Amino acid sequence: MTLRFSLSSIDGAARCGKLETAHGVINTPAFMPVGTAATVKAMLPESVKATGAEIVLGNTYHLMLRPGAKRIEEFGGLHDFMGWPGPILTDSGGYQVMSLATLRKIDEDGVRFRSHIDGSYHKLTPESSIEIQRSLDADITMAFDECTPYPVAETIAEESMLMSMRWAERSKKAFKQKKGYGLFGIVQGSTFEKLRLNSVDALTEIGFDGYAIGGLAVGEGHQEMTRILDITASVLPENKPRYLMGVGKPIDLVAGVIRGVDMFDCVLPTRSGRTGQAFTRNGQVNIRNARHSADPRPLDELCECPACNGFSRGYLHHLVRSGEILGAMLLTWHNLHYYQELMNGLRQAISINKLDNFVQSFMEMQTKGDIKAIERL
Amino acid sequence: MTLRFSLSSIDGAARCGKLETAHGVINTPAFMPVGTAATVKAMLPESVKATGAEIVLGNTYHLMLRPGAKRIEEFGGLHDFMGWPGPILTDSGGYQVMSLATLRKIDEDGVRFRSHIDGSYHKLTPESSIEIQRSLDADITMAFDECTPYPVAETIAEESMLMSMRWAERSKKAFKQKKGYGLFGIVQGSTFEKLRLNSVDALTEIGFDGYAIGGLAVGEGHQEMTRILDITASVLPENKPRYLMGVGKPIDLVAGVIRGVDMFDCVLPTRSGRTGQAFTRNGQVNIRNARHSADPRPLDELCECPACNGFSRGYLHHLVRSGEILGAMLLTWHNLHYYQELMNGLRQAISINKLDNFVQSFMEMQTKGDIKAIERL
Repeated sequence: MTLRFSLSSIDGAARCGKLETAHGVINTPAFMPVGTAATVKAMLPESVKATGAEIVLGNTYHLMLRPGAKRIEEFGGLHDFMGWPGPILTDSGGYQVMSLATLRKIDEDGVRFRSHIDGSYHKLTPESSIEIQRSLDADITMAFDECTPYPVAETIAEESMLMSMRWAERSKKAFKQKKGYGLFGIVQGSTFEKLRLNSVDALTEIGFDGYAIGGLAVGEGHQEMTRILDITASVLPENKPRYLMGVGKPIDLVAGVIRGVDMFDCVLPTRSGRTGQAFTRNGQVNIRNARHSADPRPLDELCECPACNGFSRGYLHHLVRSGEILGAMLLTWHNLHYYQELMNGLRQAISINKLDNFVQSFMEMQTKGDIKAIERL
Repeated sequence: MTLRFSLSSIDGAARCGKLETAHGVINTPAFMPVGTAATVKAMLPESVKATGAEIVLGNTYHLMLRPGAKRIEEFGGLHDFMGWPGPILTDSGGYQVMSLATLRKIDEDGVRFRSHIDGSYHKLTPESSIEIQRSLDADITMAFDECTPYPVAETIAEESMLMSMRWAERSKKAFKQKKGYGLFGIVQGSTFEKLRLNSVDALTEIGFDGYAIGGLAVGEGHQEMTRILDITASVLPENKPRYLMGVGKPIDLVAGVIRGVDMFDCVLPTRSGRTGQAFTRNGQVNIRNARHSADPRPLDELCECPACNGFSRGYLHHLVRSGEILGAMLLTWHNLHYYQELMNGLRQAISINKLDNFVQSFMEMQTKGDIKAIERL
């Protein structure tokens, strides 16, 4: 195996670790900002780094369509192309083919589809997905899978999961091992305990550098998600990183960490940043709300991000209401900063065996909610 | 008078000077980035400063409608509101009422109009425009005028100019003098020599802290603009700053400077930055063009802006083609950086009495055009 992963602290099921890749070390538990089309939207790479992020995610589906994997390879890989020298994880493309492409045809070999950009025909198979991710120079490559839709009958979930396991095996065969680079398998099985356990067995039998939990955050809700997490995370190999895909809200990250998850990714902090939604220690704040229009206070007086230093809620409100790019820039920065602060807090709490206290205080602050509106002058 | 302006060097008609305001010193000739709605679009204030800009422009029309002048005053003025501690010039609102508002009615008193945002009724007069600019805490306030449409008959241009001169007098009366704050008058008269000279006479009779040349860059073309500049700039008081409004392309700035203009503003570098147009030493570059898609070279290898350091033309092309916010951010930054470098070069050339050489070299580089496309691999 070609990615080093070592655990430094354990607190209950939660763990602190280090994942060493060709482009740098990732301290876990880690949140990975999503850099869909070779950019974390509305952020300079150095600003992404300044939030504390150590790894970003790239989307195979978007990049294979535009500018194309071979083009990025000519530019020396995704790191050089987008100016992000740190570690990169790429997804397999499977999830976004299903959510974005048109005229999809799925069979044992893979998925044929038309681009949502220009209608051109493409095909993704386990082999081509791995090859594209190699062209992109991903430090962490994801096995090609089908993200089973939700809700779904158990028989269909089983068929889908079994095909994903065959695809996982083909992905493993197609992946060329190299120092500092690794391949993760993806557990499927929807909300069915037996299928999840079978999927874990199949993947560990093949053997991967890390194990992702897929097919969650697809509408099943927080409770159902944590139930599946309880079942799945506890049976995954202890000495390999565990990655909960596409999750989530701050509370979901905390729920994942206390169940032993090491890595997360989600578009929520960046996408919300472009629609005026801010995540803070005191819960979610909709800065578009009229209550903020005359408020001279920062979004969060304890936050050290640029949005909270030098700008008022009233100004952020004005920017977002006016559709100004700077509003998207500042709120995206704030959200990513908050997510990284949260992960940092979780890591520190685990390392001193005080995760319970941290989680309790986190829940209290989130429940208490935003500071009171100011009296209007 | 309450703004200090001193000249340090003269080269032909061109001059280097210092304009001292309540919020800092502006080295002239100066280019002022436009911060329409209390933000230089797609730029953090500290990034605007990093380009070398010493003053930004705010738009009275936009700000009075959203968030409102009184709201900005509650926030301590436009400097505090938008996080720009340096000097600010605000326009009078007259120009944008004519170009953006609906159902305009203009008479001797002022202009009644409906907001282009929500259809609400508003009125601007010389007195209310000056009062709004005072609420915004503008270091430099512009007299309220009518920007005469182009082309126009001489009789109509004369009526319009004469009304603007009466409005200039009312603006002067309404303006409260304060140390470090000043009021500029605006020369009108379209393309008619006699009217321009009469307008200059009327304004100097009233007496202002600076003199703007308005009603240009409205479609008359470079040649006609320089003809009017030749007529107008030479008869303006030597010891006051001269401001050519809404201008322009790099070549227009150079044309203005050699005719004795001290200040410029234009949306071109910021607006073009959002549509993939870059201004460089080697002329204009449309980064959307397919010739850049595989080009690993920076936009300008000698430029020190972030867009030219760490990113390729191919990546910028990808961002712009993909509609990514980062594309707008990087190209806006580059364009503003280039404009400030150009002004810096002009100031240095004037200070050593080598403006002729600078202009010749500028014209050669601009005419030579962009570097050759690379051979495709």
